[in-house]
Amino acid sequence: MTKTTAGTSATTTEPRIALLGLGAMGTAFARAWLAAGYPLTVWNRTPSRAEPLAAEGAEVAATAAEAAASARLVVTCLLDDASVGGALEGADLSGKDLVDVTTGTPAQARARAEWARERGARFLSGGIMAIPPMVGVPEAGGYVFYSGPAGVFEEHRAALEVPVGARHAGEDAGLASLQDVALLSAMNGMFAGVAHAFALVRHEDVSLREFAVLLSDWLASMAHAGVPAMAGHLESGDYTEGVVSNLAMQVEGNATLLRTAEEQGVSTELLTPYTDLMARRLADGHREEDGTGVIDLLAVPRR
Amino acid sequence: MTKTTAGTSATTTEPRIALLGLGAMGTAFARAWLAAGYPLTVWNRTPSRAEPLAAEGAEVAATAAEAAASARLVVTCLLDDASVGGALEGADLSGKDLVDVTTGTPAQARARAEWARERGARFLSGGIMAIPPMVGVPEAGGYVFYSGPAGVFEEHRAALEVPVGARHAGEDAGLASLQDVALLSAMNGMFAGVAHAFALVRHEDVSLREFAVLLSDWLASMAHAGVPAMAGHLESGDYTEGVVSNLAMQVEGNATLLRTAEEQGVSTELLTPYTDLMARRLADGHREEDGTGVIDLLAVPRR
Ligand SMILES: NC(=O)c1ccc[n+]([C@@H]2O[C@H](COP(=O)([O-])OP(=O)(O)OC[C@H]3O[C@@H](n4cnc5c(N)ncnc54)[C@H](OP(=O)(O)O)[C@@H]3O)[C@@H](O)[C@H]2O)c1
Ligand SMILES: NC(=O)c1ccc[n+]([C@@H]2O[C@H](COP(=O)([O-])OP(=O)(O)OC[C@H]3O[C@@H](n4cnc5c(N)ncnc54)[C@H](OP(=O)(O)O)[C@@H]3O)[C@@H](O)[C@H]2O)c1
Repeated sequence: MTKTTAGTSATTTEPRIALLGLGAMGTAFARAWLAAGYPLTVWNRTPSRAEPLAAEGAEVAATAAEAAASARLVVTCLLDDASVGGALEGADLSGKDLVDVTTGTPAQARARAEWARERGARFLSGGIMAIPPMVGVPEAGGYVFYSGPAGVFEEHRAALEVPVGARHAGEDAGLASLQDVALLSAMNGMFAGVAHAFALVRHEDVSLREFAVLLSDWLASMAHAGVPAMAGHLESGDYTEGVVSNLAMQVEGNATLLRTAEEQGVSTELLTPYTDLMARRLADGHREEDGTGVIDLLAVPRR
Repeated sequence: MTKTTAGTSATTTEPRIALLGLGAMGTAFARAWLAAGYPLTVWNRTPSRAEPLAAEGAEVAATAAEAAASARLVVTCLLDDASVGGALEGADLSGKDLVDVTTGTPAQARARAEWARERGARFLSGGIMAIPPMVGVPEAGGYVFYSGPAGVFEEHRAALEVPVGARHAGEDAGLASLQDVALLSAMNGMFAGVAHAFALVRHEDVSLREFAVLLSDWLASMAHAGVPAMAGHLESGDYTEGVVSNLAMQVEGNATLLRTAEEQGVSTELLTPYTDLMARRLADGHREEDGTGVIDLLAVPRR
């Protein structure tokens, strides 16, 4: 290939990337790197999933070890942590930079970092805050949390930022998983609430599409109003600072929520764990707080 | 008072409003109406709370009945439905338009509408989607759901839109409360998830303020992506339409969420009611759905 050398125009020879795992997410990452001109070696347990990517310019490796041998930067996007250990069992990882974006727990990420170190590799653990349709679409706002050595992150940042945004979450390998899981857990809570809300209105004379717009706007505005305030409370230790809806009033309001669920024939099972904790915090004498104190009640005493 | 009659300049004689209840919300509504030039009569059970408003131009009535007698439009903003009935017990409501923005259940609103009808009044029930600091601040986006006769709503719309936005939620008096409660219930779920998320990260090397920004942005974007899709599923009855994160994968992911909570010493009590329902729906054979099917599981069989 001839290379442009005139003026400041770039002579891009992007470094090769080895990608293990061509599920929905791995395939989306592969396409983004190919589109950006990165040489790419791919491997997948079930070989047929690599075929479309071969046609798009990827090299296909016969084994995970062969894929890993082809590039300094080795990215794993597999089902779970066990499949990462399994796939790379016989591979030579010395001198490699292993970036694992497979979802797992913080403890799994820390153990995998140690496992990589023992094999002579540097390691970043990733937690993907995106779904496949958001990959390669910068305006969709997806990103990956990466944790591990900042130097390794900076070295590969340009490549890592190609599929979705990249955010360094700290040196401790577990911090990417931790923040990933925290965001997903909060989302689960939100969708539990959304499921309850739809159950209340679904058989009534309410346009569900219009209701959905009001509901998502309401949640977005309450998240932006409430979540930073809770962080401020946790940092200052004063949970009453700037409170506009005190716990006493909220617990009163919860009775109306539970009563409405009963009127509408909707189970209260998704509401009561939280309303019970609010009532417990109020009974502990914290009527001037808002919801932050509930967080204290979630700590499980270490055995 | 002299009135301007030249050209098109307005000769505003806004109609008088009677407002019963000067708690945090009632006081905020009162200030907004006074600031907009509405003649206002106020009443509060504890008279001292009316004093600052008298200084700002409100007439203070000695009794609820006297306040109600002063204006066609009578607004109640009291603690709960029982206090509305109690406060207006001896009042003559014939020919009045009673607008009750006190929080209650749909059944309470329907019963209160009937109670008003028996007393010769027209009735709107309101559900306030705002907190006091949002009142009189249009850009804050707060509003009230009003249900009851559309004609009554339109007649008073200009006055009702002064404190916060006004949205007609249907002719059935219960529909404002229903949607109010649905939005509040969803918000409770979201804050349950947020409490869990903060519990996971609070003792780790994570900037809580930065995390709060990521968390609220994540929730807002997932709400906007997921909630309208669920409405579409409910309307079409096909819960697999356009699914990008299928239930099988989500249930797999939930195991990581629960395991992380255990690693971090955080109770799983706020997560398991929803993860259990997701697992039940998956076991019922719906692996290609996303979360919508959980809504079906919330219906309590009528006895
Ligand atoms: N999709 C999303 O919305 C999303 C969002 C955020 C994070 N993630 C995470 O991204 C990762 C990949 O997700 P995905 O959506 O691509 O999943 P997927 O479509 O189910 O693909 C799973 C991949 O893992 C491979 N695999 C499974 N078990 C294996 C084993 N024992 N040894 C080797 N390979 C194995 C599969 O190979 P075969 O083709 O041979 O089965 C396939 O390549 C997961 O950790 C997921 O949690 C996904
Ligand atoms: N504040 C919010 O963030 C918010 C948000 C949405 C909706 N709302 C709803 O707005 C309504 C008013 O809330 P608020 O914040 O103003 O509450 P608040 O500050 O606690 O005030 C309660 C009001 O109700 C009166 N009251 C209580 N029991 C009464 C009785 N038996 N007879 C007559 N009056 C009685 C109180 O009078 P006294 O002064 O004599 O005690 C006071 O005026 C409630 O239904 C609430 O759910 C509030």
